[in-house]
Amino acid sequence: MKDYILKDEWNIIERGFVSEYNRISESIFSIGNGHMGQRANFEETYSGDSLQGSYLAGVYYPDKTRVGWWKNGYPEYFAKIINSINWIGIKVVLNGQELDLARCVIHKFERRLDMRNGLLSREVEFTNAAGERYRLAAERFVSIVRPDAGLLRYSITPVSGSAQIEITPYLDGNVTNEDANYDETFWQPVNQQASDEAAMVCMETRKTGFRVCAAMQCDLLINDTAAGIVAIPEASSGYAGKRYRTRIDRDGKLTLYKYAAIEVSLYHTKESLEETARQQALTWQQTGYEALKTEHSARWQEKWQESDIVIEGDLAAQQAIRFNIFQLYQTYTGDDPRLNIGPKGFTGEKYGGVTYWDTEAYCLPFYLRTAPPEVARNLLRYRYNHLPKAIENARKLGFTNGAALYPMVTINGEECHNEWEITFEEIHRNGAIAYAIYNYIRYTGDTSVIEEFALEVLIAIARFWAQRVNWSEARQAYVILGVTGPNEYENNVNNNWYTNYIARWCLDYTREQIALLHNQDAKALRKIFSKTNFKAEELNNWQKIASQLYLPVDKEKGIFIQQDGFFDKEIKPVSTIPDNQRPIVQHWSWDRILRSCYIKQADVLQGLYLFEDHFDTATIERNFTFYEPLTVHESSLSASVHCVLANRIGATDKAYEMYLRTARLDLDDYNEDTCDGLHITSMGGTWMAIVEGFAGLRVKDDLLMLTPNLPASWQSFTFSILYRGCLLHIRIDRNFTRISNSGDTPVSVAIHGKTYRVEAGKELSAENRQATSLEKSH
Amino acid sequence: MKDYILKDEWNIIERGFVSEYNRISESIFSIGNGHMGQRANFEETYSGDSLQGSYLAGVYYPDKTRVGWWKNGYPEYFAKIINSINWIGIKVVLNGQELDLARCVIHKFERRLDMRNGLLSREVEFTNAAGERYRLAAERFVSIVRPDAGLLRYSITPVSGSAQIEITPYLDGNVTNEDANYDETFWQPVNQQASDEAAMVCMETRKTGFRVCAAMQCDLLINDTAAGIVAIPEASSGYAGKRYRTRIDRDGKLTLYKYAAIEVSLYHTKESLEETARQQALTWQQTGYEALKTEHSARWQEKWQESDIVIEGDLAAQQAIRFNIFQLYQTYTGDDPRLNIGPKGFTGEKYGGVTYWDTEAYCLPFYLRTAPPEVARNLLRYRYNHLPKAIENARKLGFTNGAALYPMVTINGEECHNEWEITFEEIHRNGAIAYAIYNYIRYTGDTSVIEEFALEVLIAIARFWAQRVNWSEARQAYVILGVTGPNEYENNVNNNWYTNYIARWCLDYTREQIALLHNQDAKALRKIFSKTNFKAEELNNWQKIASQLYLPVDKEKGIFIQQDGFFDKEIKPVSTIPDNQRPIVQHWSWDRILRSCYIKQADVLQGLYLFEDHFDTATIERNFTFYEPLTVHESSLSASVHCVLANRIGATDKAYEMYLRTARLDLDDYNEDTCDGLHITSMGGTWMAIVEGFAGLRVKDDLLMLTPNLPASWQSFTFSILYRGCLLHIRIDRNFTRISNSGDTPVSVAIHGKTYRVEAGKELSAENRQATSLEKSH
Repeated sequence: MKDYILKDEWNIIERGFVSEYNRISESIFSIGNGHMGQRANFEETYSGDSLQGSYLAGVYYPDKTRVGWWKNGYPEYFAKIINSINWIGIKVVLNGQELDLARCVIHKFERRLDMRNGLLSREVEFTNAAGERYRLAAERFVSIVRPDAGLLRYSITPVSGSAQIEITPYLDGNVTNEDANYDETFWQPVNQQASDEAAMVCMETRKTGFRVCAAMQCDLLINDTAAGIVAIPEASSGYAGKRYRTRIDRDGKLTLYKYAAIEVSLYHTKESLEETARQQALTWQQTGYEALKTEHSARWQEKWQESDIVIEGDLAAQQAIRFNIFQLYQTYTGDDPRLNIGPKGFTGEKYGGVTYWDTEAYCLPFYLRTAPPEVARNLLRYRYNHLPKAIENARKLGFTNGAALYPMVTINGEECHNEWEITFEEIHRNGAIAYAIYNYIRYTGDTSVIEEFALEVLIAIARFWAQRVNWSEARQAYVILGVTGPNEYENNVNNNWYTNYIARWCLDYTREQIALLHNQDAKALRKIFSKTNFKAEELNNWQKIASQLYLPVDKEKGIFIQQDGFFDKEIKPVSTIPDNQRPIVQHWSWDRILRSCYIKQADVLQGLYLFEDHFDTATIERNFTFYEPLTVHESSLSASVHCVLANRIGATDKAYEMYLRTARLDLDDYNEDTCDGLHITSMGGTWMAIVEGFAGLRVKDDLLMLTPNLPASWQSFTFSILYRGCLLHIRIDRNFTRISNSGDTPVSVAIHGKTYRVEAGKELSAENRQATSLEKSH
Repeated sequence: MKDYILKDEWNIIERGFVSEYNRISESIFSIGNGHMGQRANFEETYSGDSLQGSYLAGVYYPDKTRVGWWKNGYPEYFAKIINSINWIGIKVVLNGQELDLARCVIHKFERRLDMRNGLLSREVEFTNAAGERYRLAAERFVSIVRPDAGLLRYSITPVSGSAQIEITPYLDGNVTNEDANYDETFWQPVNQQASDEAAMVCMETRKTGFRVCAAMQCDLLINDTAAGIVAIPEASSGYAGKRYRTRIDRDGKLTLYKYAAIEVSLYHTKESLEETARQQALTWQQTGYEALKTEHSARWQEKWQESDIVIEGDLAAQQAIRFNIFQLYQTYTGDDPRLNIGPKGFTGEKYGGVTYWDTEAYCLPFYLRTAPPEVARNLLRYRYNHLPKAIENARKLGFTNGAALYPMVTINGEECHNEWEITFEEIHRNGAIAYAIYNYIRYTGDTSVIEEFALEVLIAIARFWAQRVNWSEARQAYVILGVTGPNEYENNVNNNWYTNYIARWCLDYTREQIALLHNQDAKALRKIFSKTNFKAEELNNWQKIASQLYLPVDKEKGIFIQQDGFFDKEIKPVSTIPDNQRPIVQHWSWDRILRSCYIKQADVLQGLYLFEDHFDTATIERNFTFYEPLTVHESSLSASVHCVLANRIGATDKAYEMYLRTARLDLDDYNEDTCDGLHITSMGGTWMAIVEGFAGLRVKDDLLMLTPNLPASWQSFTFSILYRGCLLHIRIDRNFTRISNSGDTPVSVAIHGKTYRVEAGKELSAENRQATSLEKSH
């Protein structure tokens, strides 16, 4: 854990430079717009430790799989979003000596991420090896309005005397990934051009053939006045730059504006790419940096209007939740169903920017509640588009009849993961994808997705479960053998309660949706049946399986059993593990972890979270009380679910402890891995922890419900949601829950079980229940 | 399956050349002497498909581990016996054109492995691209008398006209492994020299620093008369050769004798290596090829005296069993406790020539019964020498108090394997190592090993089991969670019956041995207790664990359950799997294999095999009848155990079926992998199948017992064993079992339960039991 980020409501601030933290800061201060992401690398050359990262959504390379011992069914490649053309680069030479902060004495250093406006800035004052002192100020953003625009302002001031400054903004496609299994080159150059006006680099990925073209225009100012210096163009394979040289007086200022347009063949024909990039860069230049910044800021402020959370009385929590919301919107904007949300977004190479079940389980609830329904719908459609590949994936593993197994890890629908215990066995992911459909409909009330595409997904998933079970003569029940549940510290177990439960639910929910559509639009259903070659017997079979599917329960303890044989383990709370053996994944051998009772992330509790309505509070409480003390939360996705459930049973202190674990995970580098990138998908969980946790927000039978619990240290918290076309601002303090409805229609809300009607344009104020006696000591 | 090897009692013969089979033949025709191994590569250049292999026992390289997803506790390297200096090489230039059989028309080709004499020979007649016809004859051996001697004779006869022949015998250290995880270079050159007399190359392995020096002397004859031609020496980095040039008349013969001495720093100081090699090569030359061959042949014939098996009436079985015995003795001679037996011996790169539990389970029984006790004792001592590393290995996994976990795969005592389900979980190997001690004592009656070293091994293994169990509150018993049994088609299971049973046996046997030594030599025991820091409480603890260790049993079916939850599977015999899905490991995804009931190799049955005395025949029969139909035998180590057990329950037809699966595995390339090398360790199983299976040989309470079953197609079989200092020849035919005792003391033998005494120098003839009604139809 680290504590070097200054606490501030709207800004992330690093003051003073510690080179060992540079990779961490490069992750934390990342900027993005859902289409491009850029780590907070310095513009100028830096020879110290750094992970260069410029990422483009959807532009991936199928890196050849590295495996120790091949198993039949492993994928050939691991797709990864790769480091792309460096568009921020500026080479700076000061009196003949190249600027490299690793070789300078740094007097002042501030890096700042202005989340309100979506801006990254840096101010540095330093003395170089020649003993000359300079000031440097840089600001940049990737426009949230224009997905292809990367813009920056960079200025240098000689402080100790006048200086001959050579400044070369460039584009460079000669970039590599640190994470490359066989040191392959991912990119090949297509073209490059440089003139005294513009510069352009065009690259193409090997194998996948994504073409990317970056063009730039520059303005150079001396003391804020156009300098009128003619640039010397530079070009070489995959590289283009423009070299400016001038003398700047002491305390004078040389300012460079760099307008980069980065165009991708996902959105343009390859032939038109170069011209598009050149034209766009020219447009940005003509529009001007400040105007572009103004529209960018304005759009960010709109987003904040819809999705901000204000916490009174807890600055650290305030900063953290805004950081999480900000990074989520930097990663995914929901305008292209071909895109998704990588566990690290565009902030590093780890996990390759590809899609996990994290999206459905942790991110969809956020976008569903803060963005128009189209955004969440595009996340559903993403999986629908991958359905043929998911069917193909299941077929490879021996399933038939259009059964689908969605991949554990994917970018284009094909499986990329290659640990048998995950790839082949962590099949509950199929359930999360079905649940996302249910979740979408429950929140939005929009059932049109069923007919449009979602029923096909549900049928394929139900078919998978129907084949994945087998009849156990010994138990006289259907069982699901050889799985890995959400708790990946158990592998290849039988009858994982969560998996069996969600499998059963999938079978039931699909039957239910078929019945509904049959009533509403039998013709549409027939069309889907015909398309999926559906047989009526399947329904009976599903019904039979669901009704006889084994679910491990300990009746005496009144809890669900994580999997068969769990009670053969030695059950001792996490608190008995010596501190110096935590996290256990770093200190214990894998077999020891597997044999232990310790739970990486919510497993039975994940099921109770998803299917809360199916269980009474006492059941949830018994299971929480049993499983929480056994949970090590060594996944970033765990604490948020525990936070919601702790709130559910009124354990507000435990809930707040869980919230702290998730909210500042990256800002405080809790797991010492922020250097690899930010935990983007877990940020959705943090949002859930507040809104579903402390606010207790639910939607049930088309009724919005709130059951607020205010953490002791908070005076109030305020958040906004988009619900059935209405933007609702909700403020919860010790005494009142206030809801103001900015929409055009009234909204019914139940607060602590009592139903109110919030008229359009009006505010409702309801008294909160007193702190109850439900708070338990654990 | 292939059928191109000619059937012959004493020879392996390939007639006609099929280049696609070349790698297979290179494996099958391998020669070795326990210290060197050489694949049957051609001496001359061959541009066709070939796996070059010259291996030196104990000379390994720690190849950096390749792994997809790292787990805590994985080893850094995978040690492998590596391809070493090529000592057979001869470059042949015929009328200016280099000989390369891949570019010739081959009129006649015969490759022959004379197992009686330990000789590899080859005769070829071919026409080269220039249209010239030649005859080639080559013969070579690695001396079983002199571990450092590689000797060959190579002759060429021009058939279609006289020829200018240039012949360059050489030594070449510039060799690589096909199997190198990161294409590293394993060798670095130290020195090379060539003169008109001798040539020498000295190489050293990187990292491990094994130095190897090969020297050669040559004789050149024309028409069997010394040629008197002066050689032109050639030397370059890691290479030394001698080039001879002469003209040979039509039908004349040029013959080269190459005497190579290959010296290894395992047996000499690095400084003395070069001189030793030079001297030895000179000695071989002075002794002469024919004299060396004579002593070599004579020694092989001695070995056959002690270990031959003669089968009357089944030529294929006869050839196969001799091939297995021959290859076992080529691989391991038992004179150096630093050496062991790799699954492929020195016949290929696969499995890296390193040690598995195969040695104790499948090879030790062979050496124990056919070689002096010192050989088996050296195999035990090998593990004793690795004890400190095994303790260290267990410590890394979290075990304490001197508990040892022997590695799954090792060459120097350190673990090399990196699949968590094997490395950390296939822990029954520890049991096999303890059992080998028991097996040794049972057969030899020599208990001195206990005090000398074996008790330390037993204590460390017992300590491992005592910590590896845990108390299950639910079962009120000790359990062993998270293991992989011998059947590797199940991973991470709980309470594998075999593992639990052998664990319990280890605890009991160690206590028993401690009690025995206490009675015999309390002082010696105290010394061991002091050395191992042994506490008396440990004995009580072991007793408690052993008495309460859970063993899964199905009382209704009367069988042992392979592991917890086995009866949740769908149980269908192997015969229901379509042929085109076999072997399942090549056709099914790993999860499907794991979920299935199919058994890769004997698991419960392995336990019944090892602890046969603990169970009555009906129990063995019930388990065999249940598990055999579920076994796919996709390990080369499976069929032999099934063969022994089938004989045990009188199922002779099934036993013969199992024998056929194991005996000609390599000769017929049954699994299409002989190209990678021979299944050396499974060859011990084949021997067991005959001697323990069809002869029913056992030793119990110092009594040798036989319960013969003659397969229907055999008229008789004869084998020899060394038992308590006596060489016994045993011949079994339809009517009689005849035992002749070449030893100096009488031996008691029970045949079909009736005890006889075989006097020294005498033969006993006992009538066999009639074919019983026990033969079952399965």
